[in-house]
Order: sequence, then C-alpha cells, then structure tokens
Amino acid sequence: MSLDDNEVPEETQEEIMRAVYDALREYGYADLTMQKIAEMTDKCKATIHYHYNTKEELLISFLDYLVSNFRDWTVKENADPLEKLNSLLDKMIFGGTNTSIEEHIDIHRALIELRSQAPYKEEIQEQTTRNEKHIRTVIADIIKEGIDQGVFRDVEPEKIAAMIFASLDGARIRRITTNEDFALEQIREALDDYINEFVLKN
Amino acid sequence: MSLDDNEVPEETQEEIMRAVYDALREYGYADLTMQKIAEMTDKCKATIHYHYNTKEELLISFLDYLVSNFRDWTVKENADPLEKLNSLLDKMIFGGTNTSIEEHIDIHRALIELRSQAPYKEEIQEQTTRNEKHIRTVIADIIKEGIDQGVFRDVEPEKIAAMIFASLDGARIRRITTNEDFALEQIREALDDYINEFVLKN
Repeated sequence: MSLDDNEVPEETQEEIMRAVYDALREYGYADLTMQKIAEMTDKCKATIHYHYNTKEELLISFLDYLVSNFRDWTVKENADPLEKLNSLLDKMIFGGTNTSIEEHIDIHRALIELRSQAPYKEEIQEQTTRNEKHIRTVIADIIKEGIDQGVFRDVEPEKIAAMIFASLDGARIRRITTNEDFALEQIREALDDYINEFVLKN
Repeated sequence: MSLDDNEVPEETQEEIMRAVYDALREYGYADLTMQKIAEMTDKCKATIHYHYNTKEELLISFLDYLVSNFRDWTVKENADPLEKLNSLLDKMIFGGTNTSIEEHIDIHRALIELRSQAPYKEEIQEQTTRNEKHIRTVIADIIKEGIDQGVFRDVEPEKIAAMIFASLDGARIRRITTNEDFALEQIREALDDYINEFVLKN
C-alpha cells in the first residue's frame, strides 16, 4: 500500500473494521449506516467518511480485511495435511477459537445479505470473487500438500476445494435461512465421510 | 385448501405467480413492489391486494408455488435411480427443459436476496425451511430407491441428500455472487465424481 494522504493508520483501520463487524452483527446489512458504524467507535461519522468515501467502499475494505488473515486463522502450522484440513473445516463451519458459534452465525447472516447484493454492485462482486478464490486456494494448497506427501489420493485439488467450499457455504446458508439448527453438524459429518472415502489414501 | 372467500381462483393464481416470477427476474427482491407485480398482469394492484394482503404473504405463496411441482419437474419417471438423480441435478443446476440457464440464474439471484431476509422474517424462514426439506426429501427418496434396488451403496440417504443440496446451493450462490461463470459446471463434475465413488455400487 502506498503512503498517500488517504492511507488509514493501522490502529484506526483496526478500530473501524471492528466497528463494521459489530454493526453488521447488530443491525444486519440492510439497516447498516455510516452513523451506526461510527457509534461503535470513539470517532465521529466525518472521520470515517474521511477514510472511506462511501459505505460500499468501507464494506469492500471490510471484506478484504476479513479474508486477509484467513490462512493464519484457519491453518494449523506443523500439522499433517489431514489435520490441517480438518482444523480449517471446523473453523470455517463453527467459528474460530475466540469466536462463539452465535457470533460466527451472526456475522455470516449479515454477509449473506451483503453477498446477495453482489450481482447488482460490481465492486462487491469483484471483492467477493477475490475472497472466495483466496479461501479455495488455501484449501487446494492443503490438498496438494497431502498429495505430495503421498497421504491423499491423486485427486484434482481445485475441484475438491470447490466441492468443499460449496458444501460448507450451502450448509452455512441453510443454518442461517432455515430453522434447522443441526445443518452445520450434518454437513461436517458428511464432509468427514467425503474426505475419508474420497481424498484420504486408504 | 378450503373454499373460503379469499381462495384465489387457479387461473388468477397462476397469472399472479407468473407475474411475481417475471418481476423478481426483472427487478430483484429489494426493488420489488406490488405495483410492479401488477404491471406484469392485466390486473390492477388492488386485485392483487385483495388476494394477498402483503408483499410478504404473496412471496410466501410464491415460494410455496415454486416448490409445489418440484418432483414432477425434476424427476424422470420410469428411469433407474442413477438416471433420476442425474436428471434432478442437471435441472437444479442448469434449469429445466423450458428454462434457459440465464432465466434460471436470474430467478435464483432474486431468491438468494429473498432468502437472505429469512433470518429477519419468521414466515419466510418457515417457508424456506419447508421448501428445502421438500427438495432434500425428493433427493433422499431417490437414494433410498437405489439402495433398495441394490444399485446404490448402503449410505445414509438424508446425509447424502444434505451434502448434495448444500454443494448445489453453494455452487449456485458462487455463480450468482462472483464472476466465475464455470462454477456450476465445476460442481456438476465434482458431484458426478461424488456419486460415482460414494453412492454408486461398483
């Protein structure tokens, strides 16, 4: 990032991003305003507008921020590929170590609203594409590692990563949009079967 | 359905449902109004309001209508279980015989918007739950049939149906919210592998 006048100092950025996160959880996407985001910080609305011209620009920064530490957040270093894959799936489905499942579901409830606007807003669509590509690449890299180490079958990493991500995402949306609370556990089990039978070398 | 005063005559219902479908494709969910729906028919807004008190009530009827002939629409009768499953997947992913893929994507673009409101609107959440249960039951029934006929492995039909539906739904949402046009084809292939390796008896 260049050091231009408009660059957001790291501490300010972190505070604003945390405020977007909290405001999305609290109000959802449709009712989100710059004012509500500002109220989650000790800054005024004008300060936030100074760094981010529009709500859309701010949300695109937020999507970028969300995925920026995805690999660190989900992938256990110094673990074998199967353990890496399982820890990633658990975190993607149930939330990270410091995130309750309710918080995880809350934020995805707002994100699915935001994502549903992607077809109408090109910049959101582009950022969504980058985010999902990044996540699928992390998954595919673990699969490649497993193949290289001879513990996974000679599958197509990108195709398997796409299948895993799609089923995860579908299950998450089912959990959010229906009253079937067991949706996540059911898919976690089905993914275990899929990986054991289809990816792992027996 | 009881023959009360408010029952919608079949022909009128068909016309209104078709109008909701066309209006959702054209305007999406956020910009949908009763007026815009009425303009897609030869009826006035008051007539539609006479049958459906609110836009939400109308949309719930529409969701119910969409899934009402799902089995007839997707399942080829007098076919073997594998053929039935494959024809269902093709139709769910790429649209029916009389529906272009663009039309199919258009309507799902609006449906994902509508579904993203389910967590905030209990009746929409309940109808969404019914619709998805119905679709998964149709898939699970085909799997049971295959197990009974000895052509499918002794898998858990509900779990497999959940995995198939989640991956289909995830792929559809990826196709709609990102610019990755090949998302549907990639998951169709991955599902073929899944069914061949995991469901079909070899």
